[in-house]
Amino acid sequence: MSLDGERRARVALSFLAQPGDPVLWAALQIMTPVELLAVITGADEDGDAALTDQLPDPALERIMPRWRERLGEVPSVARLDAWQESGMRVIIPGDAEWPTQLDDLGAVRPLALWARGTADLRTACLNSVSMVGSRAATAYGNHVALEMAAILAEHDLGVVSGGAFGIDASAHRGALAADGLTVAVLAGGLNHGYPQGHSQLFAAVARQGALVSECPPDRAPTRPGFLVRNRLIAGLGRGTVVVEAALRSGALNTAKHARELIRPVMAVPGPVTSEYSAGCHELIRDYGAMLVTCARDVLDHLVPPGAGSLAGPRCGPSRPRDSLDPVTTAVLEQVPVRGARGPASIAVRAGVDLDTAVRCLGALQTEGFVTRGSTGWMTARRDAR
Amino acid sequence: MSLDGERRARVALSFLAQPGDPVLWAALQIMTPVELLAVITGADEDGDAALTDQLPDPALERIMPRWRERLGEVPSVARLDAWQESGMRVIIPGDAEWPTQLDDLGAVRPLALWARGTADLRTACLNSVSMVGSRAATAYGNHVALEMAAILAEHDLGVVSGGAFGIDASAHRGALAADGLTVAVLAGGLNHGYPQGHSQLFAAVARQGALVSECPPDRAPTRPGFLVRNRLIAGLGRGTVVVEAALRSGALNTAKHARELIRPVMAVPGPVTSEYSAGCHELIRDYGAMLVTCARDVLDHLVPPGAGSLAGPRCGPSRPRDSLDPVTTAVLEQVPVRGARGPASIAVRAGVDLDTAVRCLGALQTEGFVTRGSTGWMTARRDAR
Repeated sequence: MSLDGERRARVALSFLAQPGDPVLWAALQIMTPVELLAVITGADEDGDAALTDQLPDPALERIMPRWRERLGEVPSVARLDAWQESGMRVIIPGDAEWPTQLDDLGAVRPLALWARGTADLRTACLNSVSMVGSRAATAYGNHVALEMAAILAEHDLGVVSGGAFGIDASAHRGALAADGLTVAVLAGGLNHGYPQGHSQLFAAVARQGALVSECPPDRAPTRPGFLVRNRLIAGLGRGTVVVEAALRSGALNTAKHARELIRPVMAVPGPVTSEYSAGCHELIRDYGAMLVTCARDVLDHLVPPGAGSLAGPRCGPSRPRDSLDPVTTAVLEQVPVRGARGPASIAVRAGVDLDTAVRCLGALQTEGFVTRGSTGWMTARRDAR
Repeated sequence: MSLDGERRARVALSFLAQPGDPVLWAALQIMTPVELLAVITGADEDGDAALTDQLPDPALERIMPRWRERLGEVPSVARLDAWQESGMRVIIPGDAEWPTQLDDLGAVRPLALWARGTADLRTACLNSVSMVGSRAATAYGNHVALEMAAILAEHDLGVVSGGAFGIDASAHRGALAADGLTVAVLAGGLNHGYPQGHSQLFAAVARQGALVSECPPDRAPTRPGFLVRNRLIAGLGRGTVVVEAALRSGALNTAKHARELIRPVMAVPGPVTSEYSAGCHELIRDYGAMLVTCARDVLDHLVPPGAGSLAGPRCGPSRPRDSLDPVTTAVLEQVPVRGARGPASIAVRAGVDLDTAVRCLGALQTEGFVTRGSTGWMTARRDAR
């Protein structure tokens, strides 16, 4: 894993600070990650003075020693390389795979994202909807989440969720069952795959989509971490659907983030006699959430009438071919115009490993450059635009 | 039953025309009921000319002979008296008991209403909510309707519905169970009490509220009659709650009338997997109906914040004592200021029959003049205003 100054600083800071640390966010309003790291390591006394000047003393005095204590936890390049060999990558703002929709988060944008899986995170999430709900879901809620996610996946919409028991798991499983893209945003590090009971689910999500976290790989999830994580779920999808949520459910917190991001917030109604639908009803009744009963309703709210399909592939490429990065271009050049070719063959010809090829193909599909048939991948026809 | 010109004309016309007859409504835009009856009986040739002049020929030529054919069906005073002795009364615009909220219907206001029961129709409906839904209701819908109606009744809100199987029946039963007022608006005449399976329910509604119809007593309900009747359900309540409704349910037609009358339209959500909630979800999603999960939500939509209770009794009289009609005044004078007195005793002292006393007491309660305690009726205290 090559670490330039910016990447090194972001990775290092993510080991020093907790996601959601208000002092970190305030400091990054004043200086770049590289500058902040230099202040923490004591390499930049001017920066230290600038920070002390602009941030409230007690907060900074409380947190700076903690950050400095943890400097020893910043991993070596060898350790980062080992993680990369185990299939993990770090994505920072400016990378081709950085999900630019997270930039809407402004000051609370994550430092970096750790990802594992075959999907290109940016393109996967561009055409995704976030689907969340109660851990203690009912059979009704699980059924609705599973079916809705599957039908959305059939319409080329990915499903972003939090990997938790209940509605999250049903949403991921629905997308997987329909051979669709799904992204699980975890509150802890990717080596911590919480909850443990979902290790098989997470493996399947990685094969067919991506696992992502803003925490370093070995960090255990914390209680406040789940709430901080929710802003990423809301920020990655084009809109957020709450399938089942009791009053005070964490899913309502995700909906709040989506509302603040001015993304559509949708809620599935249920029996008024079920406490697990009370949060959904509250969203509709008191917070202007849109009532959705099926995948069709969700699609209606994401695709403005007359705007055509948002599901890229059917509309042809959404950006010029020469805007692609070199690796993706190499993969695209090996996708045949006539007939079809399997991903392994494309990988060998493009000189990349299979994971990279599959990820690039997924990205190219979402952007409308290629399509996947029963016998393999082919270039999307221009006349399909 | 004394019949002055206006009352005689309205009663007679209700025997000649069907509710919802567009020619009748058009004619009543041009002339009074007395004038129209004179035209039909051939007593007013000038009026006939005026009608022919202003209404489209084919419609009038088609309907006038039918109206004239039915002149023989107009009942004699003796027959009307017999109906009255059986407990029925006719209420026309201008009567103290006329529910003035129906005047919002404009041209499609009913000619007259036939009523049976102890409640004063106007005052009962002033503080009522209309509750409708599918005949083929589910256990869920029936449970919600029953409970919601009972709690509304406990908050002094009456329940108006259509007396049908399913949600209507549960709404009436909920109000009855809570010792509240309930009004059943029937599509056929009151002697026809449709559906027959509800004869016991209708008897209970009459004892504790009112049965009402714009059809003459012996007329059987017709299929279009149910739709025409729905405007009365919507017009009588302060707002309309749809508890369960499939797509294309008649309950949605009632909601449409309420919307046109600019009364609050509320809908109870249910499982998205239930076809019997699909109409409610459509109302919320596509027609701006308010999602309500409980009686509290309904009350919130009917009582604007800060406007105080709408349930008259707790606020004291809503109109001056001298605006009451003589019979009601006579009853009120027999309600003690200290202690309490039973309705039979009040009836004897006021010189009216028990039904009249009970009806007047209900009206006086709704208007805030009297309250009902466990031992009988008493005058409402002025300091409770």
